[in-house]
Amino acid sequence: MANLLVPRDELEFQLFQNLDLDSVLQRPYFSDHDRGSIAAILDTAEQIAEEQFLPHNAEADKNEPVFDGQKVSMMDEVKIAFDTYREAGFIAGRYSFEDGGMQLPETVMTACASYFMAANPSSTAYPFLTAAAANVICHFAGDELKHRYMPRMLTGEFTGTMALTEPHAGSSLADIRTSATPQDDGTYRLKGSKIYISGGEHELSSNIIHLVLAKIPGGPAGVKGISLFIVPKYRLTEDEQIGAKNDVTLAGLIHKMGYRGTTSTALTFGENDDCHGYLVGEPHQGLRYMFMMMNEARIGVGFGAAMIGYRGYRYSLEYAKDRVQGRKPPHTGPADPAVPIIEHGDVRRMLLAQKAYTEGGMALCFYGAKLVDDLTSMEEGADKTATAELLDLLTPVCKAWPSEFGPKANDLAIQVLGGAGYTREYPVEQCWRDNRLNPIHEGTNGIQALDLMTRKLWQNQQQGLRAFQKVLQQDLAQATLPRSAALVAQLHPYLGKLEQIIGHIGQSLQSEKQSALLSDAQCFMNIFSSVVMSWMWIRQATAAEKQMSELDTDNPKYHFYAGKLHAADYYLRWELPLIERDFALLKALDDTCDSMQAEWF
Amino acid sequence: MANLLVPRDELEFQLFQNLDLDSVLQRPYFSDHDRGSIAAILDTAEQIAEEQFLPHNAEADKNEPVFDGQKVSMMDEVKIAFDTYREAGFIAGRYSFEDGGMQLPETVMTACASYFMAANPSSTAYPFLTAAAANVICHFAGDELKHRYMPRMLTGEFTGTMALTEPHAGSSLADIRTSATPQDDGTYRLKGSKIYISGGEHELSSNIIHLVLAKIPGGPAGVKGISLFIVPKYRLTEDEQIGAKNDVTLAGLIHKMGYRGTTSTALTFGENDDCHGYLVGEPHQGLRYMFMMMNEARIGVGFGAAMIGYRGYRYSLEYAKDRVQGRKPPHTGPADPAVPIIEHGDVRRMLLAQKAYTEGGMALCFYGAKLVDDLTSMEEGADKTATAELLDLLTPVCKAWPSEFGPKANDLAIQVLGGAGYTREYPVEQCWRDNRLNPIHEGTNGIQALDLMTRKLWQNQQQGLRAFQKVLQQDLAQATLPRSAALVAQLHPYLGKLEQIIGHIGQSLQSEKQSALLSDAQCFMNIFSSVVMSWMWIRQATAAEKQMSELDTDNPKYHFYAGKLHAADYYLRWELPLIERDFALLKALDDTCDSMQAEWF
Repeated sequence: MANLLVPRDELEFQLFQNLDLDSVLQRPYFSDHDRGSIAAILDTAEQIAEEQFLPHNAEADKNEPVFDGQKVSMMDEVKIAFDTYREAGFIAGRYSFEDGGMQLPETVMTACASYFMAANPSSTAYPFLTAAAANVICHFAGDELKHRYMPRMLTGEFTGTMALTEPHAGSSLADIRTSATPQDDGTYRLKGSKIYISGGEHELSSNIIHLVLAKIPGGPAGVKGISLFIVPKYRLTEDEQIGAKNDVTLAGLIHKMGYRGTTSTALTFGENDDCHGYLVGEPHQGLRYMFMMMNEARIGVGFGAAMIGYRGYRYSLEYAKDRVQGRKPPHTGPADPAVPIIEHGDVRRMLLAQKAYTEGGMALCFYGAKLVDDLTSMEEGADKTATAELLDLLTPVCKAWPSEFGPKANDLAIQVLGGAGYTREYPVEQCWRDNRLNPIHEGTNGIQALDLMTRKLWQNQQQGLRAFQKVLQQDLAQATLPRSAALVAQLHPYLGKLEQIIGHIGQSLQSEKQSALLSDAQCFMNIFSSVVMSWMWIRQATAAEKQMSELDTDNPKYHFYAGKLHAADYYLRWELPLIERDFALLKALDDTCDSMQAEWF
Repeated sequence: MANLLVPRDELEFQLFQNLDLDSVLQRPYFSDHDRGSIAAILDTAEQIAEEQFLPHNAEADKNEPVFDGQKVSMMDEVKIAFDTYREAGFIAGRYSFEDGGMQLPETVMTACASYFMAANPSSTAYPFLTAAAANVICHFAGDELKHRYMPRMLTGEFTGTMALTEPHAGSSLADIRTSATPQDDGTYRLKGSKIYISGGEHELSSNIIHLVLAKIPGGPAGVKGISLFIVPKYRLTEDEQIGAKNDVTLAGLIHKMGYRGTTSTALTFGENDDCHGYLVGEPHQGLRYMFMMMNEARIGVGFGAAMIGYRGYRYSLEYAKDRVQGRKPPHTGPADPAVPIIEHGDVRRMLLAQKAYTEGGMALCFYGAKLVDDLTSMEEGADKTATAELLDLLTPVCKAWPSEFGPKANDLAIQVLGGAGYTREYPVEQCWRDNRLNPIHEGTNGIQALDLMTRKLWQNQQQGLRAFQKVLQQDLAQATLPRSAALVAQLHPYLGKLEQIIGHIGQSLQSEKQSALLSDAQCFMNIFSSVVMSWMWIRQATAAEKQMSELDTDNPKYHFYAGKLHAADYYLRWELPLIERDFALLKALDDTCDSMQAEWF
């Protein structure tokens, strides 16, 4: 089979035609980079992903990490991949030169991530989690802590985790019980249990830096009393050497249905009352710090979901071109030749849906990454504020939509392969199992829908919504060529309805209808994300149609752009209209779910 | 956790209130049975399922059958379960007294199957496949063959398989290459390869009877040249003893993502040119014979999908009642008590959807089984013909709808459990993996959509459609109480549209628009199956509302019926309206999928 990662054409389209990365590169912060240097970085990422990550993806699924009571061991290939990645400097890629990084745009880091996520999401998790944890330390830790830990995380000498969830509390962080008791020397002693900590134990690095949410006794109740701590697996000595083992115990490994190469752990802190922790930033600000990281992690989750979906799409596409089976009407006689299954209309439907879901999710997360780049490189002012609000508004969509539709794409890939897709002899079932995590972690998609409808839509006098409406209208105005303009005409009626339904929600949110409204939150997520995805597809169609008009129809680039336009047609014709249902339910403040009683089930 | 199989209330509702099994029992063929004897049979089935099938379901998933080059071995528990099942006489349950069976209605056998499919679909496959294969022999084999094989299959001394699929041909049976060369003694020698043969090798029985599709050289091309053969693993001697090993070789076991306890095999027939086979019925009639069995197998697949979905639903329901997490607005302060997650609107939505999908699928397949009972017990005539046509029309829906929505229910069960649902420490992920087979086997759901739209809708001057319209109108006329009548009012506009769209399809099917139409076949399946499922929910609501009116609201039976009405509301309000999209696409004969070119992907 052909290279199953991401064709460079696709990445270049996303970066330079759909997003205009060139203009980002002209800003002072990114001015050390140009198309040439970025191509070289993408080459490196592609090569490492293909050579070090892809080959053991299926093997690591079959040979999970094991814990013998002392040590967690896993396939050697995982460490080789991790070391190759860190030695290439990718963990620090997005960090400033000052912090020892490459000062790369987030869009470019996202393009690099596309290779790793498609090649091997499990092994990719270790460096990605490390970069994310280092990011929190970079932004919020005091200088001393930052200098002790961050540089060694950015080189991958140390790895990082995020330890939020507790067994009894799940998504409800207000109820965590892990305590952090202050000591005379300014450090804390932690005590409590955490669960589902990815990368919580392994031998890939000389130390593991856990970022732990805990409560300082006597602090405010609920989420306002949560603080954030650095809790290393090994304490550092005064001269920065690896010192005594800290009191962090692996209670056990969790056995997931997918993502099996990444250890998922239950950790106990302070079993022997000697778990040292160091406060990050101010007391009781832990949730705010963690959310800053979580917002970017959420875009990362969405992007990963799109890419695992994309891997399955590419595989099922190649399979459908190769596999000869059945005949196409009207030539269905036994003497007529059998055709590749891609000739069957329903197979094309399943491939087109996969294309729309995964390239759409990719475009959305690239757009989110571009907003991050804008925030990094823009000057302070109203535009930057609006950009930040827009990013906040889009974040739940970036997390939830691709993580809903990426697994759907994987499901369709299985179906395209038929019986073969159901077997472990083919890779698409693993894609589905891996991807099934994404609608759950970093805030379940149910929580994303509530976050969008009750919070992000309204925050800071709806500045996010207004910024969204502005950029949307600007983009729609660009869609002047005939097929793109036809897409805008299809979207148009839904925009007025969206505005009306937001007004309706605003009136109901604080009324006695609140409970019914909340039970319909998924309807609003469906509506808003479908409009956002239509916008994303219109942007891609507009870029494609412009390029296409100058090409011969037998030029492979023409084919690429024709595919983009066709996938946009598919999305607007086949997917967008489904939200009529959601408008009707929300308009009626349908209470079917809300009024169902527990004992009636 | 409580009994995770099927509450008896549910089965009794389906059999006696939704279906009026009593009237079936009054027919002469079934008159040896009554409510008391049926309750005793259900008790036996429930007990065997709970004691012999459920306990090793997860273990058999973790410990797949292995082939050491000589023999396939599997957990001892599988054979114990199989033997208990066969000794209780269940394989022969549906067969006539004359054939050594219990002459039980198919509806009752389906109710028994509900326990086994929910408890352990993998171990259940062995006796179910045997019963299905015996059924073909019963109907189509000559007396000699029938007497040699069927009785020993009905006791489970021998097991059975269906060997249709070949590696190169997949769903395209016209292209199979296995040959059957006639010998002077009237037997045949088979040569060829088959794949995905469930139960194709094991040590559960003293012999395995393969039903093999093959072509007699010189016969017609394509599907018209397919014949059906009995090919035993061991030949029988003249005095009916197990004789020489036949030339059937296990080429290998296939490693599926789920249903791991059932061996899936690649078999080679006639590697040494000595594979003896015996013609079933007439030459070149094999596909017709096999389809007769496949139609019932398709209802079985749909029912199994509903039941695996149901198991996940019940588990996630208990979990949602037990698991305390988060607060419900407006009581969201840290001092407010946390609530069981079933109190959250979005969790209720996910549970209600599961209930609608799985109890709906169950009701549909019970309805199909009731039609089978009618065919078995009715006198010849126009009514019986209409019943046969109705069953034919509904069969693709019975297969495709539950196998589409059963896995969706399992997906929602995972989501209700959150992180826990993603782990193998909880059973819901296995349910999803097991269930993922069902949209694929016994004719993929894409094939079901084509079968429905291009064949079943039109066969025999649309007698099936007319029978459907007649019973539908009769049932809707029964829905006179207010909530049931409101459901009818919601369905009503779609009935006219359905009729129009069928006319539209009829005009396009033989036109130059055929190719576009075929690529939209899934849209028609969505429309027709949604109308059918609305009908099924209106039937259940009508039955429930009648019972409910006489009960106090704190009576547990009232709760049961209130749940039925609520699930019907959910289906008609949340699911049915989605087909507006499909009407629009079909009306336009949308060619998005058809006009997409392979090279544009």
